[in-house]
Amino acid sequence: MHTQKSTAPENNIQQNQLIASYQASCDANNADQLATAIAWEQTVEIIPEAVRHQRVLDEFVGRVVSVTHNKGVATIKIAYNPALVCGRVSALFNLVYGNVSMYPDVRLVDLQVPAGLADEIGGPAFGIEGIRQLTQTRRQPLLATAIKPRGTPHSALADIAGQFASAGGHIIKDDQNLIETDLIDFTDRVSRCQQAIINANQSRGNHCVYFPHISGSHEEMSEQLEVCKSLDIKAVLTCPLITGMDTSKALCREYGMAHMGHPAMSGAFTHARQQGIDASVLLGTIYRLAGVDISIFPGSGGRLSLAPSITGKIRHRLQQKLGSIRPVLTCPAGGKSLQTMPELIPQFGNDAVYLVGGALLAHPGGIETATAEYLKAMNP
Amino acid sequence: MHTQKSTAPENNIQQNQLIASYQASCDANNADQLATAIAWEQTVEIIPEAVRHQRVLDEFVGRVVSVTHNKGVATIKIAYNPALVCGRVSALFNLVYGNVSMYPDVRLVDLQVPAGLADEIGGPAFGIEGIRQLTQTRRQPLLATAIKPRGTPHSALADIAGQFASAGGHIIKDDQNLIETDLIDFTDRVSRCQQAIINANQSRGNHCVYFPHISGSHEEMSEQLEVCKSLDIKAVLTCPLITGMDTSKALCREYGMAHMGHPAMSGAFTHARQQGIDASVLLGTIYRLAGVDISIFPGSGGRLSLAPSITGKIRHRLQQKLGSIRPVLTCPAGGKSLQTMPELIPQFGNDAVYLVGGALLAHPGGIETATAEYLKAMNP
Repeated sequence: MHTQKSTAPENNIQQNQLIASYQASCDANNADQLATAIAWEQTVEIIPEAVRHQRVLDEFVGRVVSVTHNKGVATIKIAYNPALVCGRVSALFNLVYGNVSMYPDVRLVDLQVPAGLADEIGGPAFGIEGIRQLTQTRRQPLLATAIKPRGTPHSALADIAGQFASAGGHIIKDDQNLIETDLIDFTDRVSRCQQAIINANQSRGNHCVYFPHISGSHEEMSEQLEVCKSLDIKAVLTCPLITGMDTSKALCREYGMAHMGHPAMSGAFTHARQQGIDASVLLGTIYRLAGVDISIFPGSGGRLSLAPSITGKIRHRLQQKLGSIRPVLTCPAGGKSLQTMPELIPQFGNDAVYLVGGALLAHPGGIETATAEYLKAMNP
Repeated sequence: MHTQKSTAPENNIQQNQLIASYQASCDANNADQLATAIAWEQTVEIIPEAVRHQRVLDEFVGRVVSVTHNKGVATIKIAYNPALVCGRVSALFNLVYGNVSMYPDVRLVDLQVPAGLADEIGGPAFGIEGIRQLTQTRRQPLLATAIKPRGTPHSALADIAGQFASAGGHIIKDDQNLIETDLIDFTDRVSRCQQAIINANQSRGNHCVYFPHISGSHEEMSEQLEVCKSLDIKAVLTCPLITGMDTSKALCREYGMAHMGHPAMSGAFTHARQQGIDASVLLGTIYRLAGVDISIFPGSGGRLSLAPSITGKIRHRLQQKLGSIRPVLTCPAGGKSLQTMPELIPQFGNDAVYLVGGALLAHPGGIETATAEYLKAMNP
């Protein structure tokens, strides 16, 4: 294995630095030049000849920390000044990948966020402990299902929610395709589901929590959140890559809602091999900084799937120490079933939400029976 | 060339249908199954056994229009019920690619939006004619530059803006990395730049228009827009893939701002070969429905670049008939220079904004001389 090392040595990396690592397809001869191009592209986006002030070079231009090259792939580490982020998760997202996304075959494979920057951006408002309080659970793994399919009468959707809650399921979320043009329709659906869950919780002494999906513009989401608040709903589901990360985070804070993050669109970033962003960076670190308390991602096995080596890294990033921001519940999902549980549970342990949709809803014995079976399989 | 055709014939496609075309790496034997999986994934996300209401099947599940297969690649056309979009561009974005982004090697290569749906979603508030009114131009191509680099004193950034406006440049935008933590700093920078442009316009009888960059959460963007409004600024730059498309669109409408769309993050969708979304669909049709009046994208030649065959399709989608929504100015960008203009101008013609950053700002003769040279090259 041939490795060419150049530029500053890695031991220059300090604890308080924001370090992004990229892998890029390029010749060994071009690796240093590409590294410099990325460092400039992402920070000042200009040619050196147009820089007139020393401060730009000293404080703003990214610094190439190391460049290594092996078999046509360069690994480039760049240190960015954390001050460039201005405390916003969307600006961090843009800084580490915004423009360089348009370079051919450059992938963000690692991101080290210093504690100070993580604290400045802020993380989940609830985190694992907050969700445990809402669901009144102590240490056991959590079972979730989804309200679906779209097009089903609201009363039937509410029945699904009520049956799952009756059987002791912990979390019930809307499918991310459940949307309405009219706030009246949203209100009708969400209030019926919430009422069914409240009724079930009261009659069985359970604490199932409902996460309706909010979507659209900030105004539409605000209106939906007002409705949720009026119904004593404590939590919502958003698609941060569609709503804008700063906006969904700010709205959840404003309305005091726990926040489940859906990975819609994430595959555009995570699933190409030579382009995009590592799944653990995006659905781990960045979603955590986007304030999600539960991060949904494709668990191994089932319809949507990532390799265990990748989902293990997502878990690590959601729960590792990161400044003083709260750890997040993992939520492996995507066509999971009773058959996939024995594989999933050792991977994610207790601080996880196991999301089972279709397999639970289509169970021949009905939803209550199915829920009981899953709960038993999860707590043997 | 072997082509296997199956399922319903393409002549079933009607004018009023929303049709998404995907290319997927798969065996010929699996193509039909994959097509059905996508149609269900994107609409109801459930297994057929869990559907209890006929209406779900009749009105909500996507319909496979055609499947062809050639050399390991399936081309799959799916018709979606336009009502699923609820008139929101972000919901359209999610419907056509949200979950299927997490399938391996499935790319959205074409999107036909029916006129009625385009009108329901709505497009740019200004469009080409509106921008021509703001810039007081008739038919000539427009020249734009960027205020940069970040870290430069505000007075020096304002000088750039003033010199460009003095020389008759049409549009000056902030770099998309120009952000501030404090609204006071944003106000200082933007007001200095706007004042320099006003002064230059008044002294030379010019009509240069400033597009400051707004970013962050909806609240932060609202505050920035309030400042812009108070300074009589008429236009802003956003990164729709970062702010959330519905939110930046709604905010620009609310404040009456012309809207330039930056392609930050778009490469994650457009640049992988087997994953993501065709550049003309994303930066053409979807950005247009996201309300941008000017769509920036990597033009051919220069630092960031797409092939002319692709940028030609972007132009087509920005300006073709699409319901009654306004056509959009193309804005090829990404390291363009005087040398690239002879290649660019025949491609994009007059209804285009030619964005030149570093090459113009670093011109040895100064910004006014450079601007004059570019204007001359564009209007020979």
